[in-house]
Amino acid sequence: MSAADPAAGRTGVAEEIRRARAYLQRAVEPPNRDLAQLVARYGPVETADRLCRGAVPDGLLRAAAARRGTDRTDADLDAAAAAGARLLVPEDPDWPAWAFTALTTAGSRELAPPVALWARGPGNAAELADRSVTIVGSRAATGYGTHTAAEFAGALARRGVTVFSGAAFGIDAAAHRGALAVQGATVAVLACGPDRAYPSAHTSLIERIAAAGVVLTEYPPGTVPGRLRFLVRNRLLAALGAGCLVVESGARSGSGRTASDALALGRPVMAVPGPVTSAMSVGCHELVRKGRAELVGRPEDVLESVGRIGIDLALPPAGEVRPTDALGPAARAVHDALHTRAARSAGRIGEAAGLPPDAVRAALVELEEHGLAEYHQGLWQRPARRDGP
Amino acid sequence: MSAADPAAGRTGVAEEIRRARAYLQRAVEPPNRDLAQLVARYGPVETADRLCRGAVPDGLLRAAAARRGTDRTDADLDAAAAAGARLLVPEDPDWPAWAFTALTTAGSRELAPPVALWARGPGNAAELADRSVTIVGSRAATGYGTHTAAEFAGALARRGVTVFSGAAFGIDAAAHRGALAVQGATVAVLACGPDRAYPSAHTSLIERIAAAGVVLTEYPPGTVPGRLRFLVRNRLLAALGAGCLVVESGARSGSGRTASDALALGRPVMAVPGPVTSAMSVGCHELVRKGRAELVGRPEDVLESVGRIGIDLALPPAGEVRPTDALGPAARAVHDALHTRAARSAGRIGEAAGLPPDAVRAALVELEEHGLAEYHQGLWQRPARRDGP
Repeated sequence: MSAADPAAGRTGVAEEIRRARAYLQRAVEPPNRDLAQLVARYGPVETADRLCRGAVPDGLLRAAAARRGTDRTDADLDAAAAAGARLLVPEDPDWPAWAFTALTTAGSRELAPPVALWARGPGNAAELADRSVTIVGSRAATGYGTHTAAEFAGALARRGVTVFSGAAFGIDAAAHRGALAVQGATVAVLACGPDRAYPSAHTSLIERIAAAGVVLTEYPPGTVPGRLRFLVRNRLLAALGAGCLVVESGARSGSGRTASDALALGRPVMAVPGPVTSAMSVGCHELVRKGRAELVGRPEDVLESVGRIGIDLALPPAGEVRPTDALGPAARAVHDALHTRAARSAGRIGEAAGLPPDAVRAALVELEEHGLAEYHQGLWQRPARRDGP
Repeated sequence: MSAADPAAGRTGVAEEIRRARAYLQRAVEPPNRDLAQLVARYGPVETADRLCRGAVPDGLLRAAAARRGTDRTDADLDAAAAAGARLLVPEDPDWPAWAFTALTTAGSRELAPPVALWARGPGNAAELADRSVTIVGSRAATGYGTHTAAEFAGALARRGVTVFSGAAFGIDAAAHRGALAVQGATVAVLACGPDRAYPSAHTSLIERIAAAGVVLTEYPPGTVPGRLRFLVRNRLLAALGAGCLVVESGARSGSGRTASDALALGRPVMAVPGPVTSAMSVGCHELVRKGRAELVGRPEDVLESVGRIGIDLALPPAGEVRPTDALGPAARAVHDALHTRAARSAGRIGEAAGLPPDAVRAALVELEEHGLAEYHQGLWQRPARRDGP
């Protein structure tokens, strides 16, 4: 057993399995569904052996051509360990197997499941993904967007929901910070090696996430992020959240792609609206208009979508309850005809309300019972208000 | 003919009809479907005579009890004329008959059509309602709300859409002003008599609307507004707009009621989103969440809903276009009975589709022409898909 692999002994997974997956992950750029299918059929050890010998289908051989000849497993495990990261494999009990089921069964090649994940931090990824939401949005977020992302993340984290995001500028960072601020659970999924922090300005944010929860990536140590890798990473974010919340997004953005992935994986997509005057809300509004996302106005709305039915069901937003709410149309008409300062006869009231005498009398009695009409010396009026004009 | 009725001679409607409707409108507080049905059966003159004599069904008699004995027609026509208003009746060519058809056919008693309308201003109500949107929203609107209402109203008015609203504080006033600012058409529908301006702070706004377009109300001169009358008025606003746009609304508001009326009348309802931090957008967001309103982010989105098909369509219609869309029912049934992997005989297909042999053959030929069926060795099947797995 390699001393550089701190997790191998911990969970009882055979070292050769972990090493085989480390090799496969380095050799084949994710996502690769052919590789996932081969591993499912032969297991990681035999698949690694076959790839090494070149005994795999042509497509996979071509995909691995540049890297399969060089075994960097020891160096990768050492570099990861030096950065405090371990290799999490599907054979580990804390592998988020349930969340990744959708990737295994997805039809698209782009949504193939990961072979393994580098993990920094003490968090149990399987437990964290169990009750979770992925929050994504624009890097060029507005103050409204970052405020809202932090508010939603904090409120959800306080209710035991893990906030997954990508540690990017803007919405991502605000979501992580919102969860951290309430000592909630948050997980960053990166598009670079576990020994790197991207963006570098978020080094300490990523450290805080790793210290409190876990930072995940499917890229081996030393990998630099690239535009394609961000897109590829997004499928993991989409899979790991029970739902995907888009807080701000421009007309074209990466968060739109994450939302598409989430939809393809059967995850509910939610979008936070914003001012129609804001370019940063155009993407959110389009998602709702196209029926691809549900509009959410409150963290409770998100809970309703991703939470456990019957536990987290949101209440309708509280509106003002008026004392006249319980009244029928005749009583309302009579109430409208009553004045606060000038008392009137039932006849005058009936004329103003357009109602016959018996209906007026019945309504006045009903209003009196509700404390909405006062009778004095043959005349009726509204009681003076107790709570101001 | 009464000199106090400036419109009677203008349109050639018999004076007795106009007078009868003036009497009925004063005698029976709107809405009243019994009255509308009686007028539809006997005409306004005989209905007025019957009501005066008490020869109407009990319900209507009770509803008119307080007022039917006093004929204030002359006084009403005089007061209206003094205020520059005429009585618009369904017999007039500028009666918005088409817009009110939905009220006539609506099932609800609350949505009964008006008997007549008092109209101030030169505008032709029928033409103005032909291409129109009703804009409603909170009286306690924010700066964002009034800005957005004015922007949308202006952009729509510039495209020849009449902006209907209720002249209230907040969104209503901003919508009227937005239309007036671009010399566009706008109509106010009031909940008080035509000789009154409510709210009084909007006296000059209402004057401007009357000067440029028309101000409508179904309440006779001298009528003061009340909460119930605002709700009753809202059904006219809902009917007069080809669509209903809610710009800002709190958790409970009159604009929610107008939206409900619009839905009941088969009008598309649209809501402008706003910051989730704003209490004034809660109602709009709830409308969208409940599937009662479509989210609109741009005036073009509104045009798409209320504009004329083929003229105003800004974007291609939402929704995937399927190759089977153009097929007739027989061809669709046969298409459903075709399999992608297992070829079947025309006889088996006819059995599955429940169609006779000649209809099946015709449909198969049609499908083949569309590339939706393939023939091979006496058997038919769907072609393998060209666009992925």
